[in-house]
Amino acid sequence: MHDTARPDPPFRPPVATLRRDGDAIAILDQTLLPFRGETRRLESVGEVAEAIRMMRVRGAPLIGATAAYGVAIALAADGSGNEVLDRALAALGATRPTAVNLQWALARMERVLRPLAPGSRRDAAWREADAIADDDAATCAAIGRHGLALLAGIARRQGRVRVMTHCNAGWLATCGAGTALAPVYAAHVQGIAVEVLVSETRPRNQGLLTEWELRQAGVPHTLIADNAAGLLLARGEVDVVITGADRIAANGDTANKVGTLLKALAAREAGVPFYVAAPHSTLDFACADGTRIPIEDRDADELRVVRGIGNDGRVAELRLTPHDAAAANPAFDVTPARLIAGIITERGIAAPGELHGLYPEQAR
Amino acid sequence: MHDTARPDPPFRPPVATLRRDGDAIAILDQTLLPFRGETRRLESVGEVAEAIRMMRVRGAPLIGATAAYGVAIALAADGSGNEVLDRALAALGATRPTAVNLQWALARMERVLRPLAPGSRRDAAWREADAIADDDAATCAAIGRHGLALLAGIARRQGRVRVMTHCNAGWLATCGAGTALAPVYAAHVQGIAVEVLVSETRPRNQGLLTEWELRQAGVPHTLIADNAAGLLLARGEVDVVITGADRIAANGDTANKVGTLLKALAAREAGVPFYVAAPHSTLDFACADGTRIPIEDRDADELRVVRGIGNDGRVAELRLTPHDAAAANPAFDVTPARLIAGIITERGIAAPGELHGLYPEQAR
Repeated sequence: MHDTARPDPPFRPPVATLRRDGDAIAILDQTLLPFRGETRRLESVGEVAEAIRMMRVRGAPLIGATAAYGVAIALAADGSGNEVLDRALAALGATRPTAVNLQWALARMERVLRPLAPGSRRDAAWREADAIADDDAATCAAIGRHGLALLAGIARRQGRVRVMTHCNAGWLATCGAGTALAPVYAAHVQGIAVEVLVSETRPRNQGLLTEWELRQAGVPHTLIADNAAGLLLARGEVDVVITGADRIAANGDTANKVGTLLKALAAREAGVPFYVAAPHSTLDFACADGTRIPIEDRDADELRVVRGIGNDGRVAELRLTPHDAAAANPAFDVTPARLIAGIITERGIAAPGELHGLYPEQAR
Repeated sequence: MHDTARPDPPFRPPVATLRRDGDAIAILDQTLLPFRGETRRLESVGEVAEAIRMMRVRGAPLIGATAAYGVAIALAADGSGNEVLDRALAALGATRPTAVNLQWALARMERVLRPLAPGSRRDAAWREADAIADDDAATCAAIGRHGLALLAGIARRQGRVRVMTHCNAGWLATCGAGTALAPVYAAHVQGIAVEVLVSETRPRNQGLLTEWELRQAGVPHTLIADNAAGLLLARGEVDVVITGADRIAANGDTANKVGTLLKALAAREAGVPFYVAAPHSTLDFACADGTRIPIEDRDADELRVVRGIGNDGRVAELRLTPHDAAAANPAFDVTPARLIAGIITERGIAAPGELHGLYPEQAR
């Protein structure tokens, strides 16, 4: 059981999502998950760009770190002049136009590398990419420590803790333990009896990635249909809900994968606390409240076509409903601050409207 | 537009789910929907039992009527003695042990046929099966008329009405216009601008049947992920939610397909009225409240395996997640009476706790 005197052992993802390998990187190719987790070596900036575009790596923090290594690979392979740097930044920046972390990581690389003489850039690029990946892992670990206190408190009262989550905000999406799942892993390595209820997360089924990563890490869990969340909360089978976030407004209203709002409403009805776990890069103090957050409408074929594995063991697609079936596919929803018990950040847990107290320099 | 002076034209399903065809019946085989709607002729009690067991026909009212015709087919083919009657009742009764309507329809057939001399049973069986099917169609039509007043009122105020539903409670599930969708079809044939938001209804995807049947009937609609219901309600894109019911307790608590509760909670949050449409056979006055309604846990492979159509045009299955992925699949949830604006029955719309006023003989 939980021993507060013992220093926290770190959680190590059972498979590296991304690691340096000489003048290249090795990534876990996520396009074949949850069926096969294959490592893929990326040796050129073109291969890195393709891996981001094709979602071989996914999750905002992991995309940012992968792009940073892409810059280092370009300079190592093609020389360190301005032309190579410019081309690498442009090629990587065009892969996923809407991913905020991608642009943030590339801007950080450019800020460090641009002032240097070309001869000094190569080593500096690897160092800065390593720093971006290490910072992400440290952020995840800090979120895990703060969330651990929450889960340990529940476990002390009742001997175990049952966490419901949504989508995938675990180690597969980061260079460390994840965001929403970081407290779960921190509790698990401490010996706390933690179980996770994993929602399928239609239409893209990211819950199947969460199921896979929890299985790899040996954390007890149960996959459910998104529709079952209300019943399980109402029956008292959940102690706490923790999700990630895509953007958090100044008042604490939180945009996250569509379906999060339904869980927050069902949690309030059941008297179960609903938490959001997110790093500082998700906070948008320039956005006053959730009504200002634009909601992305994605291709409705995400609803019409499903991917899985056939009897022959090969990944295949099936059509669930005809091309001309009218469908709509909003990808996010906004959970109002009043439904959120707290936001778990790398600096601690704050009430949704009190984030400026933890991040005064960012709120300014 | 809606003309209250004109008598209501009846809605006719564009495809018959079930019709008599000489000494046999012709059913719409629903196992190939939403890809192909093929008619299948059933000429023996064995074929009828197989069709019910394999869910070629589905929906409680339609299952009941199909079983009744199965008795008539047995007597027509094999003679009308007690042994033939007993075997037919046993074979049909064993197909779907949990379907209440199935047992109710078989008991009604036996009550009429048992006292008759064998020579009179054959014609009586066809008459009684026809009566069961006609009663179901009349019940659907009456639910449609009462619900129409509700939808017409909304349309008068704002020129159109946007209905959200869950699962499939339309003409595919009955011998008539359906239950939850009967008011929609009644409004549509009146020229009221009615649109339906159709939830996928994981894990069995009955929303794809609803999408198909609305398309066949020419009713405007949009398919959404179950997860999107909260967002669309919060954005004011829904005027009323109407679902079917599997069992309604004496206090109005309502069991229905899992996910219904989440829609009811999101509707209340958005100030949108949530209605249940159901015939008297769904009312269980012996059950005091929702805590007494048992919730069926179904095979978790419904979550792990999905069915669709491949590039070769053939129906096929894909595995979404491995056999050993831990999963739970509760099939229903209970929406508390306080979240329900009214229950639309064939005798009118009642507040959830006031159903005994409409059905005094049943409540006794």
